[in-house]
Amino acid sequence: MPSKYFQDYYPDDFSHCYGCGRLNPEGLQIKSYWEGQESVCRFRPASHYSGGVPNNLYGGMIGSLIDCHGAATAAAARLKADGFEITERPLPRFVTASLKVDYLAPTPLDTELELRGRVAELKERKVIVDITLTARGTTCARGRVVMVKLP
Amino acid sequence: MPSKYFQDYYPDDFSHCYGCGRLNPEGLQIKSYWEGQESVCRFRPASHYSGGVPNNLYGGMIGSLIDCHGAATAAAARLKADGFEITERPLPRFVTASLKVDYLAPTPLDTELELRGRVAELKERKVIVDITLTARGTTCARGRVVMVKLP
Repeated sequence: MPSKYFQDYYPDDFSHCYGCGRLNPEGLQIKSYWEGQESVCRFRPASHYSGGVPNNLYGGMIGSLIDCHGAATAAAARLKADGFEITERPLPRFVTASLKVDYLAPTPLDTELELRGRVAELKERKVIVDITLTARGTTCARGRVVMVKLP
Repeated sequence: MPSKYFQDYYPDDFSHCYGCGRLNPEGLQIKSYWEGQESVCRFRPASHYSGGVPNNLYGGMIGSLIDCHGAATAAAARLKADGFEITERPLPRFVTASLKVDYLAPTPLDTELELRGRVAELKERKVIVDITLTARGTTCARGRVVMVKLP
């Protein structure tokens, strides 16, 4: 069965991202997929990604997860709007124009996180995605990314 | 001669951040210091922190650097406003309420980056810092962080 994960369809050249590149052995290799209208990513960070406050995740990781999940969601949404399944075409590469994160509650370190993305705006070359990050039932962060398709 | 780096004065308990904790051996251990009214951080990322586009830094790292440099700048600015040198008191711990990054140009991977922070607003418990990230003379990203002091 073909993979359902968006990042498995980035062309090789665009698959070395520390956050989401399947060809970066030292990276996080996050994976995103559709669940209805929402994109989902589940990820359990290693304990050395601690934050300034003990047993919390560091803020940069939260931004990174939102950024990479957002880029893949933008690309998958563009593909879907063009009438293709995720398995049918190489994933277009979107890069971040802007990233906004509101940190609502401390994010615990020793648990699985769930990110959920929703497309807020979809144009030919620009896609805006809203993302929540939840841990143990609490929404810990909300993000909005503006993604632009590489020519 | 005592250290000029803000992060060297976080109390031990708050020094395990992946981005800026001096006690996190696997982390980035970024260092920030005053240069006049601006806070400066110079950092050369390892090559595995590549982005989706080859030879560029990944966006999450850019957010992380802005976040950690911003937190330390907020703390040092609060200390300074209270009349103390960085060497005179433990650094208060600020956590991120929000992070906004505008990505202006691709950030090259194989070079030293310079972050410069300026305090935009300073209150007792809340400090806003504007930060630029420059590489080889080009401003690649601009960030704004809203930081809140831990009780």
